[in-house]
Amino acid sequence: MAEHFREDSVAAVAVRIDVEHPQGMIFDPHQPQLRVDDLGAVRGDGIFETMNAVDGEVRKFQAHVDRLARSAELTGIGIPPTESWRAAVDLGIEEYRTRGVLPEELSIRLVATRGVDGEPASDDPAFAGTYWTLLTPISPEMRADRGKPIAVTLLDRGYDARAAERAPWLLLGAKTLSYAVNMAALRHAKATGFDDVIFTSSDGKVLEGPTSTVLLVHRGEDGQPPRLTTPELETGILPGTTQGAIFAAAAEAGWELGYGPLTPEELYDADHVWLCSSLRHATPVARIEDRELEVDQELTEKLTSFLKQDLPVNHPLN
Amino acid sequence: MAEHFREDSVAAVAVRIDVEHPQGMIFDPHQPQLRVDDLGAVRGDGIFETMNAVDGEVRKFQAHVDRLARSAELTGIGIPPTESWRAAVDLGIEEYRTRGVLPEELSIRLVATRGVDGEPASDDPAFAGTYWTLLTPISPEMRADRGKPIAVTLLDRGYDARAAERAPWLLLGAKTLSYAVNMAALRHAKATGFDDVIFTSSDGKVLEGPTSTVLLVHRGEDGQPPRLTTPELETGILPGTTQGAIFAAAAEAGWELGYGPLTPEELYDADHVWLCSSLRHATPVARIEDRELEVDQELTEKLTSFLKQDLPVNHPLN
Repeated sequence: MAEHFREDSVAAVAVRIDVEHPQGMIFDPHQPQLRVDDLGAVRGDGIFETMNAVDGEVRKFQAHVDRLARSAELTGIGIPPTESWRAAVDLGIEEYRTRGVLPEELSIRLVATRGVDGEPASDDPAFAGTYWTLLTPISPEMRADRGKPIAVTLLDRGYDARAAERAPWLLLGAKTLSYAVNMAALRHAKATGFDDVIFTSSDGKVLEGPTSTVLLVHRGEDGQPPRLTTPELETGILPGTTQGAIFAAAAEAGWELGYGPLTPEELYDADHVWLCSSLRHATPVARIEDRELEVDQELTEKLTSFLKQDLPVNHPLN
Repeated sequence: MAEHFREDSVAAVAVRIDVEHPQGMIFDPHQPQLRVDDLGAVRGDGIFETMNAVDGEVRKFQAHVDRLARSAELTGIGIPPTESWRAAVDLGIEEYRTRGVLPEELSIRLVATRGVDGEPASDDPAFAGTYWTLLTPISPEMRADRGKPIAVTLLDRGYDARAAERAPWLLLGAKTLSYAVNMAALRHAKATGFDDVIFTSSDGKVLEGPTSTVLLVHRGEDGQPPRLTTPELETGILPGTTQGAIFAAAAEAGWELGYGPLTPEELYDADHVWLCSSLRHATPVARIEDRELEVDQELTEKLTSFLKQDLPVNHPLN
């Protein structure tokens, strides 16, 4: 019977965390929850993660909470302990089960803002801001779109590849709510006939997508294992949890792994390029600007199977 | 009697604008107003302005609404017409008058977000997002701080001075809610013993403060008029409304005006440097890094008197 509901007709479920509800409390996401003086709402001064749950099981939960903690450290925003996030997410999933409408897949967003300026929500820094998780069903259409090859434009991110090292106040490497540029880049791509974006640094290095990590492969010759490469984190990109989980499983499978300063030319020379993200998994790139790229269904399926192993993620910066 | 209330004990007043209330509707800013899926709240995907009202008269209203419209155009966010913003602001000021507690000065913030993804608030693009104005009393202490010389650190903004021209998706020149970097730069300044920041481009040009415009003066020699200079807008900085109003009045007073590509060395060589903003007016810079700068009370008072004229602002990019 549970099979009969339409997932895109199922409502979102939201759970807030505060010092009085460290295990979370359900709220209606269609009702207003944030004050207009919350720094998350008026300064993009907050951090977030987006995770994927399949049949009620959250993928890469620890990797996302680890990255949230890293963003928290870089921004100086206090966040609740892992147990609170875990309990809040579980409460949200349980709510779907109670209603009898647990979708096959959920998008689960964790958000922490600095809260209202000058009015900490608690004396405990771990609960001084505003915190919630939002669970949204992923429609069958969105899931069917996974694996469909896309066309990507290269857009200049404005920063050079060394900006992150010399200017920590740029918050490169923190996943903040200040995403207006990422959204503008995606709109620019759509308006010019592309599906997505790969950002490049002003000095010509490959960085990341606005909501994804770049991954490329070279097939091994003469029985050698394939070699996966992703841009080095020192460029200030986000450590990708999906790329990290793929690397972990690929290492166990005997593949070679590399972190590069990468140029667009190396993308064109690769045997396959993907954009990786928690909700879209590994999306094959079939075209970059006007250059057609090879795509290989089998390789994409291999990466997807790596992801299903849900191995712990260990980034070089961790 | 109206003189007896403490301005910092007076509550903020908030007015929202929507298609059913194009003239605004009062709400309690201490109550939640925003959904957790509003793109302003979770993507910093919105725009704003901060204005100053003195004795219930809004300074530079048109210049702020013009800049909001420019930000709206750069981001593709629909906004209500000027009349709506004007009516909402007047409603907020009237609310203070009705309560008998109109503060001598108010900070007035205008905010427009892209609204909830996929759920426009109206079919009319001018009312499809989320819109409000927040009026907050400016305390006597804050007002007394104006004109006090400050120490400023130069921080690399990561972009070169030509990034705005070649990469419009960076939204340089739009005043968006994605202000996490601006806030981080200010925190970095305070943590290292400074009061504020002047951003420089990665190629060494002077840009702007995180919440202010840079202005410098050279006194005229032998009876020549003084010359005011501010960084050129082509660098992607915000067109300053306070700097613009000062320029308008200075032009009428026969001063010379200039827009420069400016280097830090030119700041050190100036006769006076200010950071200009709507709430702090013209703040004298007494030190940049470890270099002491001359400050001149009389010149600052002159700029303040220019501001009081509240002349129309006309930027070279307008």
